[in-house]
Amino acid sequence: MQIDILTLFPEMFSGVLGQSMLQKATEKSAVNYNVVNFRDFADNKHSTVDDYPYGGGAGMVLKPQPIFDAVAALKEKAESKQPRVILLCPQGERYEQKKAEELAKEEHLIFICGHYEGYDERIREYVVTDEISIGDYVLTGGELGAMVVVDSVVRLLPEVLGNQESHMKDSFSTGLLEHPHYTRPADFRGMKVPEVLLSGNHKFIEEWRNKEALRRTLQRRPDLFDKIKLTAEQEKWLKEVKKDVE
Amino acid sequence: MQIDILTLFPEMFSGVLGQSMLQKATEKSAVNYNVVNFRDFADNKHSTVDDYPYGGGAGMVLKPQPIFDAVAALKEKAESKQPRVILLCPQGERYEQKKAEELAKEEHLIFICGHYEGYDERIREYVVTDEISIGDYVLTGGELGAMVVVDSVVRLLPEVLGNQESHMKDSFSTGLLEHPHYTRPADFRGMKVPEVLLSGNHKFIEEWRNKEALRRTLQRRPDLFDKIKLTAEQEKWLKEVKKDVE
Repeated sequence: MQIDILTLFPEMFSGVLGQSMLQKATEKSAVNYNVVNFRDFADNKHSTVDDYPYGGGAGMVLKPQPIFDAVAALKEKAESKQPRVILLCPQGERYEQKKAEELAKEEHLIFICGHYEGYDERIREYVVTDEISIGDYVLTGGELGAMVVVDSVVRLLPEVLGNQESHMKDSFSTGLLEHPHYTRPADFRGMKVPEVLLSGNHKFIEEWRNKEALRRTLQRRPDLFDKIKLTAEQEKWLKEVKKDVE
Repeated sequence: MQIDILTLFPEMFSGVLGQSMLQKATEKSAVNYNVVNFRDFADNKHSTVDDYPYGGGAGMVLKPQPIFDAVAALKEKAESKQPRVILLCPQGERYEQKKAEELAKEEHLIFICGHYEGYDERIREYVVTDEISIGDYVLTGGELGAMVVVDSVVRLLPEVLGNQESHMKDSFSTGLLEHPHYTRPADFRGMKVPEVLLSGNHKFIEEWRNKEALRRTLQRRPDLFDKIKLTAEQEKWLKEVKKDVE
């Protein structure tokens, strides 16, 4: 997968793309990152990338020209006619795991990260294929959003992941929050691991984990129940958990 | 504000904390960052920070000892008895702007970032004050989540922000998505700026912007209307916009 990132702050990306899973993915040739300062594409003397908004108001707006031309150059270079061109912005579609799975099937992603400024609307209309918001909070720029999307997508590429992370995916594939985890020591400064986990009885352990996943979801994210279909056994457990909670 | 970050990948943070607004905030002495590898606090010979889960299963679990002791040391160093200790995890409360505003009032934040592994439950129970999820997607670790929370909080500190960003805040303070922005040229390769923005008539421009903010919110995030109270004028505009959309 080719990943191009347009930003005015390319140095922000080195630490994140050069470490851990994202770095290993390049070693395995699963992905190639290309971080580009779109200021280099400004066709004016002072390499200006923003300007005052028409109609007045505070704040600057990113000009269309540098971004139109940068995206065109990246498409040409990659010989890719239909890359997904992703704009990170608060007005975008709320990012969820399903979107990560969709993007992981693509061959070429281009990310556009504004910083401080707003975007000229023509960028959205004529260049961008996807507007994404990673959540309902205000960030200084699109860079952290791009990193979040890149991380969540690259880890889904078939070559990238080992078994090491499989348990983290479990939680999302069941649609419930994960049950609690414990490791040694069984007694840490007086704080103890639940007896059942030390019992060696796998049936009891499975039941405990299922109930605790249901309990945690009920207490923290009951909205998730609207999105999944529980098995008959889970329904029974959920009833028991609800009695406990009351 | 003192911000401590516990991670196994401290190098991930240099690019992000050393650039732009987050870097300027340190120059203004609004904030002090301290990124700590909690492996340094492991009290075993091989500096092991994780171990197999009790009860079996794939994946490793972060041991309680290194994190308990790292947090205790950071509290002592900062002479801060009541820091917020924030765990980034999918099971956490969904992060929103209101939480950023709450955290911006604190003097000391400690972030705990797991990576691949799950957390021993005793960390959640006895050390952590806040569990935060930045969204419903799977990331390789808590590091990007910590960066997101740090960015959104630090930019709210009173010393940090200039007027440059004020327009980005507007959108969230009204509770609606932002209206489109345009800058020069008025005609870019045949793509034109709406006439009204060139008219110089501020009343018309205000009305257009209000309607477009309502239109965009209606089309993309109708759920936001449940959270805000519209003025009588906005209600009228919204009716007009709804007619357009039908």
